[in-house]
Amino acid sequence: MTGKVYLIGAGPGAADLMTVRARRMLQTAGAVVYDRLVSPEILALAPTDARMVPVGKAPKCHTVPQERINEILCELACDGLTVARLKGGDPLIFGRGSEEAAYLAAHGIEVEYAPGITAAQGMAAATGVPLTHRGLATGVRYVTGHRARDARLDLDWKSLACEDTTLVIYMGAANIAEIALNLMRAGLPGTLPVLAVANATTPREARVFSRLDRIGTDMAARLMAAPVLFVLGHVVSLYHDVPLPADLPQVMAGE
Amino acid sequence: MTGKVYLIGAGPGAADLMTVRARRMLQTAGAVVYDRLVSPEILALAPTDARMVPVGKAPKCHTVPQERINEILCELACDGLTVARLKGGDPLIFGRGSEEAAYLAAHGIEVEYAPGITAAQGMAAATGVPLTHRGLATGVRYVTGHRARDARLDLDWKSLACEDTTLVIYMGAANIAEIALNLMRAGLPGTLPVLAVANATTPREARVFSRLDRIGTDMAARLMAAPVLFVLGHVVSLYHDVPLPADLPQVMAGE
Repeated sequence: MTGKVYLIGAGPGAADLMTVRARRMLQTAGAVVYDRLVSPEILALAPTDARMVPVGKAPKCHTVPQERINEILCELACDGLTVARLKGGDPLIFGRGSEEAAYLAAHGIEVEYAPGITAAQGMAAATGVPLTHRGLATGVRYVTGHRARDARLDLDWKSLACEDTTLVIYMGAANIAEIALNLMRAGLPGTLPVLAVANATTPREARVFSRLDRIGTDMAARLMAAPVLFVLGHVVSLYHDVPLPADLPQVMAGE
Repeated sequence: MTGKVYLIGAGPGAADLMTVRARRMLQTAGAVVYDRLVSPEILALAPTDARMVPVGKAPKCHTVPQERINEILCELACDGLTVARLKGGDPLIFGRGSEEAAYLAAHGIEVEYAPGITAAQGMAAATGVPLTHRGLATGVRYVTGHRARDARLDLDWKSLACEDTTLVIYMGAANIAEIALNLMRAGLPGTLPVLAVANATTPREARVFSRLDRIGTDMAARLMAAPVLFVLGHVVSLYHDVPLPADLPQVMAGE
């Protein structure tokens, strides 16, 4: 009897920011295939006899290639196991969940989804900075600032330089100076407020409040633990209203 | 003793797509202030002795103005109640949660957030259409297609016509023909696939699979129940892989 695969969003970090469905799926799993960003508190929810399979991608350190992850999921399901494929955030936003789903579907394996709170939403809930706000942002856009080794950052700067849209950059810490420069060249003002947040919603949360013409140097000055999320836009001006925890931790590991 | 306000995302529809935190907050509430889009199954999770206050906004029918909602939240918290402010989706994406938070903060009332799965993610999990996918979409963008009475649709069409970004339009059913026309004028191909989904993740889910040059007439031909979400982009081409439920309901109420 072939098993099935649950493609599960583990959310932004805090264990109670998983959905009820995601937690229930995890609790019924016979095998758990998980990324590096999934917290120990969440992994502890798996049944004690579940097979635990880390495939976790760290920046610059893809321990298990995507093709092999696809095969692992397939093999476990073919062994008859109910497989929980746990990803940080949402499996269908920068999660490659749809690539895994396509591979599994081609092999006749049933897939079910549990969406997850994506990092941008975790940042918003943790800091009070909204993703849209009347008069400040009519919409929001998520892009990735990551690039393959030696490749150019291939982003449509003209389209991105839209001042009334909140821009959220995932995986951009390595390239933020170049990204900021390109956005200013395309027309965004250097004074546009920027918030960098690492590990939002977890005890390791760290924040840098800056602006577009300074974020590059500000980030170079302090190494934040990956993953870092950048929020660019006028909504960030609302950040002042929110008190910062006095003992804001600053983690000292490079991305 | 002044109470506090939980700004809670109720998620896209299905009760098990709330976060664990959101459910816990709701279960401890002394008063629940909720929008029309929050389902009866979710409202049933509130304590049986909680004061239930509907303020629900329907399209073209704002039963309670935003200013009055702000006051209601303030009054209930000042009565010493723990207030659950329940909104469909995420309170900080098109939810006006940050306006309520600002009002409450100005009145010295503590606010805590529980983020929610937004409708775009609910659509993705229900249909298998991802919001990003390598080779099809490098990012995703949420905009609102709603406009105030007699106002013009004030969107930056040039910026929106970005073919490698998935475009998700909230609250656009009344204006989708005009939106599609503007996007084609700005350069998007008429053959771009479009998926319209109403009430994703609920038993009332309905879908229309179309393309940019036909979505206006296709939507005019069948009235879908609000709220309708439109997904535009090459990721929608993956929709074919997902079997439709044979008995897909078609709800016959205008938006």
